[in-house]
Amino acid sequence: MARVLTLAGAQTGPIQRADSRAHTLDRLIALLEQAARSGAQLVVFPELALTTFFPRWLLSDTERDAFFERAMPNPACQALFDRARELRVGFYLGFAELTPEGHRFNTAITVGPDGGVLGTYRKVHLPGSVEPRAGDRFHQLEKRYFEYGDLGFPAFRGPGEWHRAIMGMLVCNDRRWPEAWRCYALQGVELMLMGYNSAAYDPNGGSTENEAIRTFHSTLAAQANAYMNATWAVSVAKAGNEDGSGLIGGSVIVDPNGVVVAQAATLGDEVILAECDLDLCRQGKEKMFHFASHRRPEHYRRIVDQVGAEPPP
Amino acid sequence: MARVLTLAGAQTGPIQRADSRAHTLDRLIALLEQAARSGAQLVVFPELALTTFFPRWLLSDTERDAFFERAMPNPACQALFDRARELRVGFYLGFAELTPEGHRFNTAITVGPDGGVLGTYRKVHLPGSVEPRAGDRFHQLEKRYFEYGDLGFPAFRGPGEWHRAIMGMLVCNDRRWPEAWRCYALQGVELMLMGYNSAAYDPNGGSTENEAIRTFHSTLAAQANAYMNATWAVSVAKAGNEDGSGLIGGSVIVDPNGVVVAQAATLGDEVILAECDLDLCRQGKEKMFHFASHRRPEHYRRIVDQVGAEPPP
Repeated sequence: MARVLTLAGAQTGPIQRADSRAHTLDRLIALLEQAARSGAQLVVFPELALTTFFPRWLLSDTERDAFFERAMPNPACQALFDRARELRVGFYLGFAELTPEGHRFNTAITVGPDGGVLGTYRKVHLPGSVEPRAGDRFHQLEKRYFEYGDLGFPAFRGPGEWHRAIMGMLVCNDRRWPEAWRCYALQGVELMLMGYNSAAYDPNGGSTENEAIRTFHSTLAAQANAYMNATWAVSVAKAGNEDGSGLIGGSVIVDPNGVVVAQAATLGDEVILAECDLDLCRQGKEKMFHFASHRRPEHYRRIVDQVGAEPPP
Repeated sequence: MARVLTLAGAQTGPIQRADSRAHTLDRLIALLEQAARSGAQLVVFPELALTTFFPRWLLSDTERDAFFERAMPNPACQALFDRARELRVGFYLGFAELTPEGHRFNTAITVGPDGGVLGTYRKVHLPGSVEPRAGDRFHQLEKRYFEYGDLGFPAFRGPGEWHRAIMGMLVCNDRRWPEAWRCYALQGVELMLMGYNSAAYDPNGGSTENEAIRTFHSTLAAQANAYMNATWAVSVAKAGNEDGSGLIGGSVIVDPNGVVVAQAATLGDEVILAECDLDLCRQGKEKMFHFASHRRPEHYRRIVDQVGAEPPP
């Protein structure tokens, strides 16, 4: 018997620093409603979906903290949670989290159809640096504004109406790190949810990688890691020209064979949708990637015993 | 200053059980000479390049051992080694190894331009099973005929005329396992060499995966793992209808961006070639995938602490 879940990716166009929270929330709710009308049971929003990608600037503490959520939900987001519960649609939402203890994380949650939080993930693979580079207009200061995620890669199950799908979350750069996927696959993940904000080009004028190759990398990582871990994956962008800095689009839904089954065509607000049979994961999990039969962890020690590369003499 | 190495993949068509060793060796030498005429410095041959893919049959011990090499080189292969040294071309060669102590491995070696063996690798990720499945005409008995590789993933350096490239080897199914690539990347690998024999379809008549999706998987794994480990990769098939069982082609040379720069178009003996600048690995190794800055091994413990998947309750 098929275990079909209708999944949507709700790509957003840019969210400018000047945009009000109410305006942004209206856009997210409109995408949610559009997805629900098409039958979506679970909608994936981008990383840092409530604000501009603020790590591109060097900010004062006060400026920084204006981008963080002190609770989730909170009054400025409640309408999204309420509307989703009315529609019995779940969602993945990325946001900047400030804990009661004063810790800051680049976080995602998955909310179930009843409005309850099913899972929380804090981004492990923070790119960028702590210090800005002198002379650059734009920075990548995630290592300055966030602590490394402290929850590891915790898989969780969806509710019965989602066929108790085994789910995992990643945030942006995590999707390029095979270790992250494998830690979820070792918990039997069937559905990986991911939001991202990925630069389309060097906003400071460098020419090393253009938008086409960066979009290719984003898609390639989703496809291959979905295949090698025998899981569905939904990978969703915040896209377009945001506060003068370009972000790739290319949101995709990928099946456990690594095949793209839905893909965004624009750099704006756009819903992609697919009916996903979770049992399609079984072919990979029971044969080619039956871990218990084929993995040889005694040869994988370097993965945990080393951090950086150590070339031979 | 660029560090350019001209690489070739020498895809072979099928090698039938009835083919003589001399006939097969003549084919390999012809491919080597063709690659050398085009400027290749290093030629990659397939997995088990000297014989048919014998794990497809249940064999007596005597039948089995006829496919194994007791030394490398040996008189039946010497002509390939001699011709390569004359041309100052190195090569990767996959073969069935029987050690003096009586151990059997699915092995690959890389031979340098002076004829010396630079590195040895024994396949870690053996697919298939120990016991044949009743009623099937064709089997996959690698777990019966070979022991798991006991050398781990040992990177090694090429000679000065290869710019002391940091090199690694995998064999067939290994290329789908991100752990294997990562262990090499943690040694700074710049060039991954791989040969394979991969079924084009279920030779017993099942219809789960066709030739197109299997070829796609082979290419996808090479592209994404090359990208995520910032390395060149050469992935080379034994292809075509071998003793009644179909093998995919699709041999590729992939750059450190995951882009295919050369690809075989046939299922027969065919040379693919590319001039590869090893310094193209630096962009990935020094930025996006600078492991020392970005990896978080404290969260990767499952990769070595577990073998099989352990789903949440």
